[in-house]
Amino acid sequence: MKDLIVQKYGGTSVGDTARIKAVAERIKGYQKRGKRLVIVVSAMGKSTDNLIRLADDISDSPHKREMDMLLSTGEQVSIALLAMALHSIGVNALSFTGAQVRIETDGNYSNARIRKIHTETLEKALNKNIVCIVAGFQGVDLDQNITTLGRGGSDTTAVAISASLGAEQCEIFTDVDGVFTADPNKVPEARKKAQISYDEMLELASLGAGVLHSRSVEFAKKYGVILHVRSSFHFTEGTMVVPEEQVLEKLLVTGVSLKNDESRISVSDVPDRPGIAAELFDALSKGKINVDMIVQSTGQNKVNTISFTILKSDLESAINQLNLVVKSWGGGTVSVEKEISIVSAVGVGMKSHEGIAAKMFTAFASEGINIEMIATSEIKISCVIDREEGERALNILHKVFGLEKTNGG
Amino acid sequence: MKDLIVQKYGGTSVGDTARIKAVAERIKGYQKRGKRLVIVVSAMGKSTDNLIRLADDISDSPHKREMDMLLSTGEQVSIALLAMALHSIGVNALSFTGAQVRIETDGNYSNARIRKIHTETLEKALNKNIVCIVAGFQGVDLDQNITTLGRGGSDTTAVAISASLGAEQCEIFTDVDGVFTADPNKVPEARKKAQISYDEMLELASLGAGVLHSRSVEFAKKYGVILHVRSSFHFTEGTMVVPEEQVLEKLLVTGVSLKNDESRISVSDVPDRPGIAAELFDALSKGKINVDMIVQSTGQNKVNTISFTILKSDLESAINQLNLVVKSWGGGTVSVEKEISIVSAVGVGMKSHEGIAAKMFTAFASEGINIEMIATSEIKISCVIDREEGERALNILHKVFGLEKTNGG
Repeated sequence: MKDLIVQKYGGTSVGDTARIKAVAERIKGYQKRGKRLVIVVSAMGKSTDNLIRLADDISDSPHKREMDMLLSTGEQVSIALLAMALHSIGVNALSFTGAQVRIETDGNYSNARIRKIHTETLEKALNKNIVCIVAGFQGVDLDQNITTLGRGGSDTTAVAISASLGAEQCEIFTDVDGVFTADPNKVPEARKKAQISYDEMLELASLGAGVLHSRSVEFAKKYGVILHVRSSFHFTEGTMVVPEEQVLEKLLVTGVSLKNDESRISVSDVPDRPGIAAELFDALSKGKINVDMIVQSTGQNKVNTISFTILKSDLESAINQLNLVVKSWGGGTVSVEKEISIVSAVGVGMKSHEGIAAKMFTAFASEGINIEMIATSEIKISCVIDREEGERALNILHKVFGLEKTNGG
Repeated sequence: MKDLIVQKYGGTSVGDTARIKAVAERIKGYQKRGKRLVIVVSAMGKSTDNLIRLADDISDSPHKREMDMLLSTGEQVSIALLAMALHSIGVNALSFTGAQVRIETDGNYSNARIRKIHTETLEKALNKNIVCIVAGFQGVDLDQNITTLGRGGSDTTAVAISASLGAEQCEIFTDVDGVFTADPNKVPEARKKAQISYDEMLELASLGAGVLHSRSVEFAKKYGVILHVRSSFHFTEGTMVVPEEQVLEKLLVTGVSLKNDESRISVSDVPDRPGIAAELFDALSKGKINVDMIVQSTGQNKVNTISFTILKSDLESAINQLNLVVKSWGGGTVSVEKEISIVSAVGVGMKSHEGIAAKMFTAFASEGINIEMIATSEIKISCVIDREEGERALNILHKVFGLEKTNGG
């Protein structure tokens, strides 16, 4: 649809009624410039936390369908208030829940996936020059049950609507200025990037450094939706997330990141027979424990060691699972390093350039930082190091790859 | 449907998570006794007020469609929490919004009327022995817009569902013990009634004394739904609202009430020509001002005086309307008595017994209470008196009609 912009405003951007009014004024400005608009909003600031607290008061393990029924009210409050704010400054607007738009999802409560967005209702309103305000994070399954999309769900809603309606651009308004070469709170020289490719954004998102959730970036990549990540507090341009071929300046490394919320587990002296690793990760998967980095090595006596990282919050339940598995094998030792850091460098330039890894390892070696595990993808290198060295390592990487000198491209 | 009970719990009954858990326990008890259950709930305690405050922050006159979108979240929170509470004590339950049940209303936002309740979804769940938790106060129009039913809306939802599904009984759980012969806060001798007829309940409701809103009683009368008004804080029987022929003991007067929220307006010296009264009340109606009692009298010089009562909160806007009308007539005087009381006696026995009015007027006269206006219906007599005499008059009436001696029937 021509001249269509989809905008998403996060919880901080609609955190109170004053901010909702400010968002309404911003929207009015776009409309004056002849844009058609679909606005996706999250729940106000801490309102989701308050709802979760109510549920926790009621039950230790709240029923998932009812949890989605409960949480979806947060976004419904936001859309109603934003539509009111637009009306009060003379902008014709209509709010829609996920059910009213018919954002069709699977039935996987609390982490549903969008299957289809029915566009008739939105198109009808847009053709009458009405601003459509859509509740993010929610949908309905085929039986009309309300579902929610899990973390970063409102971003996914915005991207999916952009794809379905063929929007010019999908603007993600948030409380940061865009995507940076590193977390500015940890690396003072970090610079905002003007552009980044989908794949780089995906890697950064999965490394916890990104402002976007990976599912929304995957969606954007699949359907070629141009994302613009920017601040709702001022009018400065943010970062464009675009197909790789549209990135003007292809840097070797586009950004570096640090993750401090994982722990490392090693299972050593495991029997040398096929299927051992499968049994191990199967047990973790049944315990709903996500495994991040994995390294397997064969020792001198053909006895394997398998090391991997998981979220620190999953540590206790992982150890319980692993002890059962090791017991069933009749051999093996589980050891844990709770406090680790994962430092990573990400960049599409790595595909065509050799020596990035060597540069990284050399820099760490000369600074006396010990690397405990290494994992690589086509456009990413990650190292597990001691937690105490995390921030120093991040700053070293940022400098080694010259990120403070880039023009932000 | 056999063995089906519909229950409605008001905002105080689900005021916090502890109370929601108590409601869940009560429901479990009914289920154990083999009952099928549809539970209608209101928004938690003050949550609606909080939502209204947000809207007021945004706009002086919030858009009505968006107000309904906003307010309907209150009940949605309650149904989710109650369903969770039931799950956590082993009761299979499912929550449904008005849209999910398909409670079809007209498109009159903030005061919609139920047109039809689709029963398939509820019947399917009830036949699987699932407790259905339905959001009160809300529905959807034919275009899927969310509507709300106005004051007392959750009662109406419960009664309408009872009628549609053919429930044995519709229990209205509230924070009072039932319907009393008078407000126990004002008349210490007031007694709880075991039974009351629809028509008496309607009169008492419209006089502000009732615990039920008149629309829900009208609905119950039309479809013969037996209502049971009772407290959610203990297990004592409340008051049954039933067809007149089922009332066991037909009293002359079943209850007395006092209203202190109205003011009296008199328009005197108005021209003597046809259509004067119509012009006057038409102007008030256009200003959305509800008129309660009306008395018209012709004076000596064939100059009319028209007196009527309206809500005190409408007084200012009413006077503005009336001054315009009087100006257009070129004559007439508007006078106001702001502080009045309306005392009323209600009872189906009045239909067949003469002398009730006389008994009332005599009692007031002998106690020196001046009657300023009188209005009667088939089963009600109301008098406007001075505000300062209101409570005393109420107690006099209660005694004169022997209500403290009744067996509550």
